Amino acid sequence: MKIDEYINSCQLILSKVVLEIYPKAQLVNSFKDDSGFFIDFDVQSISETDFEKIEIKMLETINQKISFSLINLNQIQALDWFKQINQSYRIDQLKNYFNNNQDIIKFCKIDNFQDLSRGKYLNNTADLKYFKIKSVSGVYLDNDVNKKQIQRIQVKVFKDSQTMANYFQILEQAKLRDHRRLGVNLDLFVFSDLVGAGLPLFTPRGTILREEFSSFSNELRLKHGFQKVFIPHLTKKDLYEKSGHWSKFGDELFLVTSQETSDKLVLKPMNCPHHTRIYASQSRSYKELPIRYLETTTVYRDEKTGELGGLNRVRSITQDDSHIFCMADQIEEEISFLLNSAQIFYKTVEMGLRVRLSYRDNSNGYLGSQEIWQTSQLQLKKAVEKIGLDYFEQEGEAAFYGPKIDFMATDALNREHQVATIQLDFVQPERFDLNYIDQNDNKKTPIMIHCALMGSIERFLAVYIEHTNGNFPIWNAPEQLRIISVNQSEKILNYIDQIIEICQTMNIRFFLDNQSESVSKKIKQAELLKIPYVLVIGEKELEDNVILPRIRKDLRNNLNNIEPLKINNFCQILQTEIQKRSNKTLLDL
Amino acid sequence: MKIDEYINSCQLILSKVVLEIYPKAQLVNSFKDDSGFFIDFDVQSISETDFEKIEIKMLETINQKISFSLINLNQIQALDWFKQINQSYRIDQLKNYFNNNQDIIKFCKIDNFQDLSRGKYLNNTADLKYFKIKSVSGVYLDNDVNKKQIQRIQVKVFKDSQTMANYFQILEQAKLRDHRRLGVNLDLFVFSDLVGAGLPLFTPRGTILREEFSSFSNELRLKHGFQKVFIPHLTKKDLYEKSGHWSKFGDELFLVTSQETSDKLVLKPMNCPHHTRIYASQSRSYKELPIRYLETTTVYRDEKTGELGGLNRVRSITQDDSHIFCMADQIEEEISFLLNSAQIFYKTVEMGLRVRLSYRDNSNGYLGSQEIWQTSQLQLKKAVEKIGLDYFEQEGEAAFYGPKIDFMATDALNREHQVATIQLDFVQPERFDLNYIDQNDNKKTPIMIHCALMGSIERFLAVYIEHTNGNFPIWNAPEQLRIISVNQSEKILNYIDQIIEICQTMNIRFFLDNQSESVSKKIKQAELLKIPYVLVIGEKELEDNVILPRIRKDLRNNLNNIEPLKINNFCQILQTEIQKRSNKTLLDL
Repeated sequence: MKIDEYINSCQLILSKVVLEIYPKAQLVNSFKDDSGFFIDFDVQSISETDFEKIEIKMLETINQKISFSLINLNQIQALDWFKQINQSYRIDQLKNYFNNNQDIIKFCKIDNFQDLSRGKYLNNTADLKYFKIKSVSGVYLDNDVNKKQIQRIQVKVFKDSQTMANYFQILEQAKLRDHRRLGVNLDLFVFSDLVGAGLPLFTPRGTILREEFSSFSNELRLKHGFQKVFIPHLTKKDLYEKSGHWSKFGDELFLVTSQETSDKLVLKPMNCPHHTRIYASQSRSYKELPIRYLETTTVYRDEKTGELGGLNRVRSITQDDSHIFCMADQIEEEISFLLNSAQIFYKTVEMGLRVRLSYRDNSNGYLGSQEIWQTSQLQLKKAVEKIGLDYFEQEGEAAFYGPKIDFMATDALNREHQVATIQLDFVQPERFDLNYIDQNDNKKTPIMIHCALMGSIERFLAVYIEHTNGNFPIWNAPEQLRIISVNQSEKILNYIDQIIEICQTMNIRFFLDNQSESVSKKIKQAELLKIPYVLVIGEKELEDNVILPRIRKDLRNNLNNIEPLKINNFCQILQTEIQKRSNKTLLDL
Repeated sequence: MKIDEYINSCQLILSKVVLEIYPKAQLVNSFKDDSGFFIDFDVQSISETDFEKIEIKMLETINQKISFSLINLNQIQALDWFKQINQSYRIDQLKNYFNNNQDIIKFCKIDNFQDLSRGKYLNNTADLKYFKIKSVSGVYLDNDVNKKQIQRIQVKVFKDSQTMANYFQILEQAKLRDHRRLGVNLDLFVFSDLVGAGLPLFTPRGTILREEFSSFSNELRLKHGFQKVFIPHLTKKDLYEKSGHWSKFGDELFLVTSQETSDKLVLKPMNCPHHTRIYASQSRSYKELPIRYLETTTVYRDEKTGELGGLNRVRSITQDDSHIFCMADQIEEEISFLLNSAQIFYKTVEMGLRVRLSYRDNSNGYLGSQEIWQTSQLQLKKAVEKIGLDYFEQEGEAAFYGPKIDFMATDALNREHQVATIQLDFVQPERFDLNYIDQNDNKKTPIMIHCALMGSIERFLAVYIEHTNGNFPIWNAPEQLRIISVNQSEKILNYIDQIIEICQTMNIRFFLDNQSESVSKKIKQAELLKIPYVLVIGEKELEDNVILPRIRKDLRNNLNNIEPLKINNFCQILQTEIQKRSNKTLLDL
């Protein structure tokens, strides 16, 4: 299958069908990616429940086995056509052709519908077979929050029936692994109507998971001279007016009213402005740079559509955030370090990683000189290449204040998630009058680098829970070892006490199940909670003074026969696995 | 000096003088304590700047050398007198005498003023010498937030001139130790106009201090089966309506407006209601109890009068909070454990500790049966006595939902600070329908115990910084060791690299000062930051391969001559001090 022709053809049919079903819909724009395409429509309320209706109508068109024909229209014919079907965005787009003095405009036509040609097309609709509407989401026109919201329909195309079948199988698997379901079954987090939508509460097990990832993320950076800081979540609106966030994101903020004062306050949506206040609290010399602040802290976004019961979209978002203040010639080394840390992090959690280099395009609205943009975009690219990361470049995806590197992690179901970002920032240091004294006693403005390895811990956990299907490796498993007593005899409980003492010394997270239930029921219970290791302790273990651990299925890959172990040896192996952040059991090494 | 007569006499003169200066002032109530007394006046705006005026007028009265005379008035005379000077609260109080059929009412009179007698008095005003107005603060009439605010004037009395001189000396010392000044000098925290009053930002050094205390506090409890949880700071108002906090404290809360939804949200003022939601997310058996949740998290209070630039009163308050859910017969053991933890904590920070047992009185407004109150008050007392803590009992100081233990810590200047509290709670478990299944398969309601060891970390730090005068012991010192190079020769810097490697392995927080400044200037700099240990490394240290640490003055007490040490030995001693949370240096042991 020639993917480009396939995508173009499928796009045309989707456009045709949507305009048939929603006569007032306006075609705005379309984009391709590796596995399909998006079309943006200016239209009210297409929702997931409409997908079937749209797909059926697309199949009806396809089954008519009609030809795609490429035709040439002149300016007047093209204009007339879009006027006839009331497509105002298309009419605007035609003006670009006219401005370029392009008289002949290529269209592709099927049946009674035609649209601007995108290149090559299939011969016949009958060749279209493997596609699926994936999602619909609201986006802002021209990506500008001040403009109206339009609908983006994403379609996936597949090269053959096998690939499509795989896709559906993955969807099915994903449903089984749904983190919302696992969150309840594994007792990780809860929601409460009294607390509110999008505001999860983490149970003891979920809190361990959070802390394991947060300390791993911190540990990587603390070694490199990052220092922890601590800022309030509540702040005067003035701070974000000064930073520029207020005018850009003002209506996504939670406004806070003081009943005692006339202060205008908000819940912080970003941490960078606060961190600049700490930087600016002392005079700084070039000798101190880079200064690197690190903080696991929460930001707040007023989400209308908090995905109920899930961690993907929450209103209270914990970030493993950090900010570096440095000189221009220090950027490359700092970025290399951060890229390296991200690689270690995602290798440890066994996810694939590639990055997007997000550059500016030629439109207005970017701050800072062309020269500084070019240099820094080059610096980002050099750093990414040096470390050998898989990357692609995209213009027009930069932040208004600088270029960035966006991380894409691939999970066990081959789904890609945008997880984190490294951003260069030339704007906030200026806005906040940050400075340092250079070698020649001159005041200079530092550059800021924003970086988070996970981004949102909540969102990362949503991905990670589904990635592992809740089979957490021992290093982050909330409960690492369950000890089950065969009965409640004093001898056995005394023996278990010795085991517990070893576990405590070795910082192993264990739970003792000595209830008066049957052993099989107790084992079942441990299996439901997906505990990595289970020790069943009875007379035999006591007599032989060795144990034979039960190992969770996914960890058993290379294990044929495990030899019975002294409890001390077993616990030492566990401790090594934990310290190494190992994803396999070391019992078979 | 007979303290009681002295206090009574001084009270009478203060009352006389305040009514002279503020003719509309109303006497409400008065209390004595160990070192003086309080009088509550219903009066507008007495402020600290008025103290001098009041004290001068008191001294004028005293210098007149008039006698105190005890007189008897009958009901009509007493009533006439208070009507004449317009004292409506006194008139109400007289009714109690009348109701008890007390016909003769004792008054004490000086000059043209008389008030209800409080017992014994001095003979002559000339005997009054040693007193000082300490503070004025706003309190609610009858301690009821729904009633009007009145003014409480606190006066300290001293038994002789020496004690009074000591008091003023301490005031002077306290001024020098002011944590706001030290916070700036030692680079611990900063405020920003853009962020707002009462909202401190913690620098890297201040954050280390926070974290050291927070992990110490947690560590004590984690050993006892407490489990960390994590809750959002933002929540629907509904939660606090259900808990009862809304009706009691509603106007002290920060209200949060969602621009995207119609949700009525607040910033959490308490953590207990959230923790009940985690408890209630599973069905619980008596076998699981006690369940103990622990969380270092922030609550928000809308303070009108955020003390500018200080940590005593902030609007964003971090608590080392915890909640135990248990059965009635488990209360005593849990309380004992918490008392013991508090003792360890305050012994480690070298503060004296005594507790107030805060009981209910006979007024209404307490929830729960008389029986449960009596049992639990007794349990608290038994636990306190068992552990041998210095305590006193006070009726009418309980929370509406249960009795409590309030901790008072004494700092190096002999000032007492209320630092933390353990509270029994019979009400919230009911309100939130919490339950567990008991031995007989019946649903029962658990009891909640609230406990924080520091209370507010910010307030604790304010106290601790002044307590230590910023001379932090090595275990919590943000910078434990400063290494100063005599010059920048390669040989010396290589040697220092070896020292740094040892420090890193041993987790010692060090900073290398290898700038091209004079050694004396670099030492001075380390002294200003009150670093516990300084190593000056030059040719000599390199040749002899031993070092002679410079030790901060307050740690040098018992040290006469320190022998030069191998760097490894020195670092090992430091590591032991850190792990032991030692407040002395072990170099002289």
